[in-house]
Amino acid sequence: MKKSYTTVLALAFGFILIFWAISIDGSVTSFINVPSIAITVFGSFAAVVISFPFDKIKNAPIVLKNLVTKNDNNKQELVETIVSLSRLSRSQGLLALDAEIEGIENTFLAESMKMVVDGMDADNIREILETKIDNMEDRHYIGQEIFLKWGELAPGFGMLGTLIGLINLLGSLTDPSTIGGGMAVALLTTFYGSLLANLIFLPIAQNLKTRTEAEVNTNEMIMEGALAIQAGKNPRVIEQKLESYLEGGRLKEKPEATVASEEREYV
Amino acid sequence: MKKSYTTVLALAFGFILIFWAISIDGSVTSFINVPSIAITVFGSFAAVVISFPFDKIKNAPIVLKNLVTKNDNNKQELVETIVSLSRLSRSQGLLALDAEIEGIENTFLAESMKMVVDGMDADNIREILETKIDNMEDRHYIGQEIFLKWGELAPGFGMLGTLIGLINLLGSLTDPSTIGGGMAVALLTTFYGSLLANLIFLPIAQNLKTRTEAEVNTNEMIMEGALAIQAGKNPRVIEQKLESYLEGGRLKEKPEATVASEEREYV
Amino acid sequence: MKKSYTTVLALAFGFILIFWAISIDGSVTSFINVPSIAITVFGSFAAVVISFPFDKIKNAPIVLKNLVTKNDNNKQELVETIVSLSRLSRSQGLLALDAEIEGIENTFLAESMKMVVDGMDADNIREILETKIDNMEDRHYIGQEIFLKWGELAPGFGMLGTLIGLINLLGSLTDPSTIGGGMAVALLTTFYGSLLANLIFLPIAQNLKTRTEAEVNTNEMIMEGALAIQAGKNPRVIEQKLESYLEGGRLKEKPEATVASEEREYV
Amino acid sequence: MKKSYTTVLALAFGFILIFWAISIDGSVTSFINVPSIAITVFGSFAAVVISFPFDKIKNAPIVLKNLVTKNDNNKQELVETIVSLSRLSRSQGLLALDAEIEGIENTFLAESMKMVVDGMDADNIREILETKIDNMEDRHYIGQEIFLKWGELAPGFGMLGTLIGLINLLGSLTDPSTIGGGMAVALLTTFYGSLLANLIFLPIAQNLKTRTEAEVNTNEMIMEGALAIQAGKNPRVIEQKLESYLEGGRLKEKPEATVASEEREYV
Amino acid sequence: MKKSYTTVLALAFGFILIFWAISIDGSVTSFINVPSIAITVFGSFAAVVISFPFDKIKNAPIVLKNLVTKNDNNKQELVETIVSLSRLSRSQGLLALDAEIEGIENTFLAESMKMVVDGMDADNIREILETKIDNMEDRHYIGQEIFLKWGELAPGFGMLGTLIGLINLLGSLTDPSTIGGGMAVALLTTFYGSLLANLIFLPIAQNLKTRTEAEVNTNEMIMEGALAIQAGKNPRVIEQKLESYLEGGRLKEKPEATVASEEREYV
Repeated sequence: MKKSYTTVLALAFGFILIFWAISIDGSVTSFINVPSIAITVFGSFAAVVISFPFDKIKNAPIVLKNLVTKNDNNKQELVETIVSLSRLSRSQGLLALDAEIEGIENTFLAESMKMVVDGMDADNIREILETKIDNMEDRHYIGQEIFLKWGELAPGFGMLGTLIGLINLLGSLTDPSTIGGGMAVALLTTFYGSLLANLIFLPIAQNLKTRTEAEVNTNEMIMEGALAIQAGKNPRVIEQKLESYLEGGRLKEKPEATVASEEREYV
Repeated sequence: MKKSYTTVLALAFGFILIFWAISIDGSVTSFINVPSIAITVFGSFAAVVISFPFDKIKNAPIVLKNLVTKNDNNKQELVETIVSLSRLSRSQGLLALDAEIEGIENTFLAESMKMVVDGMDADNIREILETKIDNMEDRHYIGQEIFLKWGELAPGFGMLGTLIGLINLLGSLTDPSTIGGGMAVALLTTFYGSLLANLIFLPIAQNLKTRTEAEVNTNEMIMEGALAIQAGKNPRVIEQKLESYLEGGRLKEKPEATVASEEREYV
Repeated sequence: MKKSYTTVLALAFGFILIFWAISIDGSVTSFINVPSIAITVFGSFAAVVISFPFDKIKNAPIVLKNLVTKNDNNKQELVETIVSLSRLSRSQGLLALDAEIEGIENTFLAESMKMVVDGMDADNIREILETKIDNMEDRHYIGQEIFLKWGELAPGFGMLGTLIGLINLLGSLTDPSTIGGGMAVALLTTFYGSLLANLIFLPIAQNLKTRTEAEVNTNEMIMEGALAIQAGKNPRVIEQKLESYLEGGRLKEKPEATVASEEREYV
Repeated sequence: MKKSYTTVLALAFGFILIFWAISIDGSVTSFINVPSIAITVFGSFAAVVISFPFDKIKNAPIVLKNLVTKNDNNKQELVETIVSLSRLSRSQGLLALDAEIEGIENTFLAESMKMVVDGMDADNIREILETKIDNMEDRHYIGQEIFLKWGELAPGFGMLGTLIGLINLLGSLTDPSTIGGGMAVALLTTFYGSLLANLIFLPIAQNLKTRTEAEVNTNEMIMEGALAIQAGKNPRVIEQKLESYLEGGRLKEKPEATVASEEREYV
Repeated sequence: MKKSYTTVLALAFGFILIFWAISIDGSVTSFINVPSIAITVFGSFAAVVISFPFDKIKNAPIVLKNLVTKNDNNKQELVETIVSLSRLSRSQGLLALDAEIEGIENTFLAESMKMVVDGMDADNIREILETKIDNMEDRHYIGQEIFLKWGELAPGFGMLGTLIGLINLLGSLTDPSTIGGGMAVALLTTFYGSLLANLIFLPIAQNLKTRTEAEVNTNEMIMEGALAIQAGKNPRVIEQKLESYLEGGRLKEKPEATVASEEREYV
């Protein structure tokens, strides 16, 4: 699992930008107000804990680890691996794949191939793999949902804090000239709520969603490949099928495709 | 049914946090205003009663009981139970399961197995169980909808209360120096509406939604297991199928899986 | 068709609450302003008339009648009726049902059974009944849409009225001390728009939606029952199928279910 | 194509209402401000042009013609036409329909019947007609989307205009007593944006959507009818099928339905 | 690939309009404030980078190229090409198409026909082409998502900037007469956020979405055409099928359609 710090760097850059903007006409210390932070962060967190079963929330920090994980599902490489497995299977039979499974890095592909080698029938394999993909999606979905919900609730608690500040301020207003400072403090929670939502929670939720979609797509490609191997399909047909999952396709760059068309050997 | 008080504790924590925030610069008593509470709570409740048939609303308090119920559908245990039932069925026939049904805690599994033992055909069982799951989902959905709607309407009634306060205040404004106190009172309903929505109603609606989704997923797993037993499938295939519903899968931790692959006994 | 006045009573209660809240610190008469009501109510109604073909809007008042109609589709009773029809059909043949159709109160069940007795084939019956359910849903959907749209447009016209008031007020502002009264009047349309949306239009739209969903569910149950009778299924299987549509199911409370399982007579 | 001016009249009524409301406490001329109108109308139009390929936008005015077109798809008449065609086909063969096609007003029905008479097979007819319906829906959808988008963007540009006005006003504020007039002008663009969205664009988008849904429903009914004629189904079965698309159904009002049930002649 | 500058021109027109509106009562230079632009543009960009894997964001500028590309998928011409290919195939066999593939401009049609000529079976071709379409849609979808997200986040960062400005302003307010200028500067970020969202990001997201939908529709038409050629269908049936994808259809304008109906030669 290679690391990728783009997400973390962008987060740091966003915070530095905000600090810089604050410091142009003011001081960062005047933006640090413990009660304001407490209401916004812990209040919205309490609402998040109410919103989800606790065992789901416990897993949320684990999900965060994904943010520094480089998605190393190189789809191009996976296609090549699957095609070479299909060639081996066509020439030496399905059982010859048994020795290869050990060396497969991608867990989902390894599990898929083991079922193929074990002789499980195609319907069972498809059912098990589809259930796995669905459930992986569901589990990741909860992670996204937690951050999405937090991102939706944080501005609400920011506004609650500002309302508390305003009501206290207006209720005891004797000297109108002091209203400015009170308003500034009251607005701090709105600022925190908006900052948490727009720079942290909503982008993280979107990041997790995009990662899940990419992983589902990759696993569907792997499933189709494994089932095609089991069905004993022509390696070249398998290659074309799997390449339809790749970004730009490769059909055009392959001069031998014309040769292939002359052979007309597809089955 | 074990109890879990996380949800209730988070709710209490949220309220304590809000009270604490109020008391820093003001007094909690100045936030208690009976007419403001009446408009926000009863006004939005009237709108909720208009929104749903009354017999659905009567059931809403029952649904709240779920918030302190620990979801004891231990999926791992359920998988083990179903696999052991499938072993019994393979060795001694479907009728041998009859004695086991009594001891099954999970109602949905017990009902499913009874139909299997009673010799009902697979299509009928699937149809009945799917209808049960759909209707359970529909019934729970109404519960969520009620709290979601309440959470959407509460800020609306909060704003209505604030508008009433503002219009009365501005319409009879003679001494501008008194406007602060009036504004503070007018803003109270906005505060209540936002508090009810963000700390209570919307999180509860989300909690009920997450629970329903988990229960639907568990019941679908049970249905697949029951149908696989009826079809007389190999217990090991059933185990693999059901494990695809579990969080992390178990395939990797089981060294005997390799043994299994050597037997190649799947049917 | 029994009547149920819960919806109307909740509406009345909501208005009384609002009037009471107004009268605490002000007078209800200062909230009555004919031009403000005209802009909000008729302006948003004009936009609703633009939004929908006129013949759909003409039907909207008819739909309102539903709000005082008690949903008398007692699903438990319907299940019993269908099961007794299935018993009659098993013992005396489908034609024996002809005499019973007259006595069936539920129109959809009567129409379904007539097609069964007339010997129409199962595919045609399913197609006709599904089209009926779909089209009933579509027609009711338009009713909901009209109130939902009105509920979305009313606050918009409320804001338009307030903007007109503010622009007129600010454009001719000579004596700042008079601004309060003008603002109060300008805010009235926002108040009306919000009241219409939150207490009347949006709750009514939700109410109609919930009713439609319940009716669709009941009619699907009736369709399944009619088709099961035509297929000559075992009355007890039909009973179990239909009971999966009921709130809590009844399986557990029926001791004879065990007897049934001993007979193993399902076909 | 009969004309229906309800939509146009409601639009005119809405504008008259707004003018009347303005003139109560102010003058209509003070609401006419060319730069404000330019920003709101042309600014949001520029954003609409960016949002859609230009050839789609060119077609938008054509779509507006629909707003004064009375939907003359009298479904009751269409059912009668189709049923009489099915009777003719049963008695004299499919080719006898050829002479009737000329007289069919509804283009979609005429095209469907031509394919039936031309002897095209059922799968091809269904495929072609479904593609036609889908593509008609897609084309109309773009029209709705353009007005919906315009309705979403207009308030945004209204707010942009108000922000420009406010920033200019506040940035050069020397005499606070002049702020009222400047605010009034700044608010004008918000007023225009809200008026365009709530009275014109959003209602028109909804109107087009409702019309498309009605046309899709009618065309699906026609397709089912044409396919039933080709399959040589009993005219009475066809009648019942198509009537399930009609508003209230007619089954109950037809005393001869009982006679029909005695004949039991459905095939 | 012909160019179309409508989108770029509309964007330029929008900016000119905004500059003109600013310059009526103020000066454009007072709207240029580097820190405000930095917070809004770079802050929201940082949040976008957090939201998506970096390799997706790298591709976003490429997608922008599409905005000046005229969609040259002339569907009418494509239909004619496919129909002429089908005539050739009927008269001289599928292999005769091999020489034609070179001359086909549309890449998707060329790839589809190559598979047909290579003798791949219909199910494989459909699967590969559908996967290609799905994955093309997914890839384009990410491009839209990035601009949509940016358009959603920009106003959030605009508001954050305004909050920072307000808090600094109010916290250090000593001379109330200076508040106007500070407010003007604080509102600038809100102005930028709203301008970026409404004139640039949201319209571009919509433009990309509309283009993708059009391309998916065209490719589905090509796929149906290629499969119909492989199945050896009658060229005239193919023509009618594909024409159901065209804007207004052509059936009516073709007098020879009547002749065709006399031949009744469809197979």
